[in-house]
Amino acid sequence: MFVHRHRVLYADTDMAGIVYHANYLRFFEAARGELLRAGGLPYAEIERRGLVMPIVESRLRHRRPARYDDLLAIETWVSELRAASVTVSYAARRHADGELLCEGSTLLACTRREGGVIPLPLDLREVLAQASGPERRPSARHRL
Amino acid sequence: MFVHRHRVLYADTDMAGIVYHANYLRFFEAARGELLRAGGLPYAEIERRGLVMPIVESRLRHRRPARYDDLLAIETWVSELRAASVTVSYAARRHADGELLCEGSTLLACTRREGGVIPLPLDLREVLAQASGPERRPSARHRL
Amino acid sequence: MFVHRHRVLYADTDMAGIVYHANYLRFFEAARGELLRAGGLPYAEIERRGLVMPIVESRLRHRRPARYDDLLAIETWVSELRAASVTVSYAARRHADGELLCEGSTLLACTRREGGVIPLPLDLREVLAQASGPERRPSARHRL
Amino acid sequence: MFVHRHRVLYADTDMAGIVYHANYLRFFEAARGELLRAGGLPYAEIERRGLVMPIVESRLRHRRPARYDDLLAIETWVSELRAASVTVSYAARRHADGELLCEGSTLLACTRREGGVIPLPLDLREVLAQASGPERRPSARHRL
Repeated sequence: MFVHRHRVLYADTDMAGIVYHANYLRFFEAARGELLRAGGLPYAEIERRGLVMPIVESRLRHRRPARYDDLLAIETWVSELRAASVTVSYAARRHADGELLCEGSTLLACTRREGGVIPLPLDLREVLAQASGPERRPSARHRL
Repeated sequence: MFVHRHRVLYADTDMAGIVYHANYLRFFEAARGELLRAGGLPYAEIERRGLVMPIVESRLRHRRPARYDDLLAIETWVSELRAASVTVSYAARRHADGELLCEGSTLLACTRREGGVIPLPLDLREVLAQASGPERRPSARHRL
Repeated sequence: MFVHRHRVLYADTDMAGIVYHANYLRFFEAARGELLRAGGLPYAEIERRGLVMPIVESRLRHRRPARYDDLLAIETWVSELRAASVTVSYAARRHADGELLCEGSTLLACTRREGGVIPLPLDLREVLAQASGPERRPSARHRL
Repeated sequence: MFVHRHRVLYADTDMAGIVYHANYLRFFEAARGELLRAGGLPYAEIERRGLVMPIVESRLRHRRPARYDDLLAIETWVSELRAASVTVSYAARRHADGELLCEGSTLLACTRREGGVIPLPLDLREVLAQASGPERRPSARHRL
């Protein structure tokens, strides 16, 4: 399972003393990018080929608040792989105790830069297939 | 139907020349806040009573890109009202032609500041009930 | 004096319960954009001509904290106008009592999209000249 | 010299294809926090003692654009240390070639949580003194 780490900044928090909900989508972008890089195909390379992967849908489910200076361990995996789109799922845990803080997913399409959906390139499919994980929900807590 | 307006900034866009997906959650926070204010019960007043309304779930579905300087008209309504939680739904349209750009929803709970779910206060229920709208999806385009 | 208003969101705040310092630069971008629009020359029109105005320098000085739901009145003026650059200054006040919360300035150059500094177009110079204000600091408090 | 790394995200960029200026303040917050942690005194520990370090001033000077997927090396040092405040300076370079992209500084005060400026605690002074660097500007380019 690919895991990306993020240390919570003041900039990430809001007046409730917790991570502002929208910021998880930024953390998840970083995690997804590092998953592709770890697979040998950075997203920048995909764009150099004239492709883009626009985000079609996002979902977030908040379980527990994350707080300033928490180190987050963001588990990241491919939960559904289709011809011209992919769903990436995330489980952000508190690194210290494995507590599940936020789950989410993003559905990305594959298009030409000038528009028009196209199938995922073969080498990208391979990287994504190797990152495949369960569609079901992550457990509430486990040791990382 | 309550409508909140937002003018897209450079700060809202990304290198694809469109609004970065996570920023819609910020626009939707503003829209939800103005809906409550228009109903006579600003969210700040709710917090002054020792209550908070944490966000439990968020969903975004992107239909068309929004671009710099676009004026967005964000239709905002209550799509489900329960004893201790509420779902607010949003449809962000391009003001110029009514084109649907992004739909979304947020599920908010009602808790005491120190924790513990409680029923929505009666006056808040009334404001939310008056903002009730359909659960079904908004149409792809209509004149605002 | 041009004044832009912004209602402080949860998204703007941090765990200290105040507006996170970097967010003032976003408020100031909105104020600067509305100043140009009010002058009849929206920034989007400048870019349609193949020009861009990159930000070269920014300064912020924080006087008092702004809090959630505060309505900010952001006074915005041109404090220095040169051949190929302009400095825009800002004073963000609490609308309720005129208290000065944050001052700042941004220095913008004028370049062709493909690079290369060029003089400010004449009509833009006129709009900026009409928005000229003092170089000196704003007073700590005054009725808006 | 303390160096913090940041990989530029889509979320960091704007429609000009470069890092949006305000986001450097977020990168600099992360760099400053890691400098304190590396010195053995995480900022969270300072707040646990009932102190806060509000940001009084910020300055940014942009030299060259940073782009998506650039790895930034953010040199971070204390440029001025006073009884009850400190100025931290930053030079963000492109890691690949050492090119200077953005310089900046932040002036932080030291106060009690309930308000009131107080001298920097002794152990914090020591950490900051060990991170002392020049007041003068960084050179335009050097190998990292």
